[in-house]
Amino acid sequence: MPIVRVEMWPGRTREQKAELAKVITDAINDIAGAPPEATIIVFEDVSKDDWAQSGKLASDE
Amino acid sequence: MPIVRVEMWPGRTREQKAELAKVITDAINDIAGAPPEATIIVFEDVSKDDWAQSGKLASDE
Amino acid sequence: MPIVRVEMWPGRTREQKAELAKVITDAINDIAGAPPEATIIVFEDVSKDDWAQSGKLASDE
Amino acid sequence: MPIVRVEMWPGRTREQKAELAKVITDAINDIAGAPPEATIIVFEDVSKDDWAQSGKLASDE
Amino acid sequence: MPIVRVEMWPGRTREQKAELAKVITDAINDIAGAPPEATIIVFEDVSKDDWAQSGKLASDE
Amino acid sequence: MPIVRVEMWPGRTREQKAELAKVITDAINDIAGAPPEATIIVFEDVSKDDWAQSGKLASDE
Repeated sequence: MPIVRVEMWPGRTREQKAELAKVITDAINDIAGAPPEATIIVFEDVSKDDWAQSGKLASDE
Repeated sequence: MPIVRVEMWPGRTREQKAELAKVITDAINDIAGAPPEATIIVFEDVSKDDWAQSGKLASDE
Repeated sequence: MPIVRVEMWPGRTREQKAELAKVITDAINDIAGAPPEATIIVFEDVSKDDWAQSGKLASDE
Repeated sequence: MPIVRVEMWPGRTREQKAELAKVITDAINDIAGAPPEATIIVFEDVSKDDWAQSGKLASDE
Repeated sequence: MPIVRVEMWPGRTREQKAELAKVITDAINDIAGAPPEATIIVFEDVSKDDWAQSGKLASDE
Repeated sequence: MPIVRVEMWPGRTREQKAELAKVITDAINDIAGAPPEATIIVFEDVSKDDWAQSGKLASDE
């Protein structure tokens, strides 16, 4: 069942996402006992124009 | 009130989304009693580079 | 792949959710061509104290 | 901790998002007591082809 | 259309949420031009056992 | 910046979530280069009455 959603700034390569997917799926299997085929991971790139902290867009920092 | 979010791989046409919106809204009305004007549906296309199962990106399968 | 998330006010029964899951999954199969076993549906109950429209909590209307 | 997600139709400028981020962060500080540096805001543009109400895509209205 | 989702730690009162809903809806109206009746706000309380930063649950800090 | 959301069936302990948070945060640091203090992880338990696959609630299987 596990559904994992990972939001990061753009710039990560397909290879980095593939590696992350592998490591997170293995961790959920090892630690939480969910079989790998039941774990779904969705990546979303969030532009620095669409992300703010301390009331400021990341692209303004 | 109902808010429905539908994530699918890219490739569905505007017409398919329009038809899905109609059927899902009607089903929520018939089954759950929510009036159609209160039901909002948001579609999100998720690239096969951004979706993994069994620890593998869909674009690697 | 499709992941569907349905947020509604509390009060829908398990049977209503089961029926909705069936109809939505069938619609995604018929209209978008996704096989039923690939479609995941998650329901979330949202309390009227946690939902606002027009700047007012639903529990205040 | 607060995480705020704002989905709007496309067309809002970077400046409008920056101003919204400032006002929402200040409101959460004033009203809920969360320090500004702990508040994260994510904006998502949703196309009118991907948004439906009353069973109709917004781009059909 | 705007949909706003606000995740915070538990402990905010119904009154604080009502006030936040009002201020955020007004800000979206003033700054982004969306009419108040089109703005929906959903609050979600996230327990400190379900929230981590720096790899540590908030309830461990 | 990374925000990670993990939805699982209920039953995982606080300790399992703490360990998952640590491993996922480290993986995002190692593979994607995001500093641990910038990574936020939110866990959500989803009841088997609120989760369906193949058009059937998990609690019916």
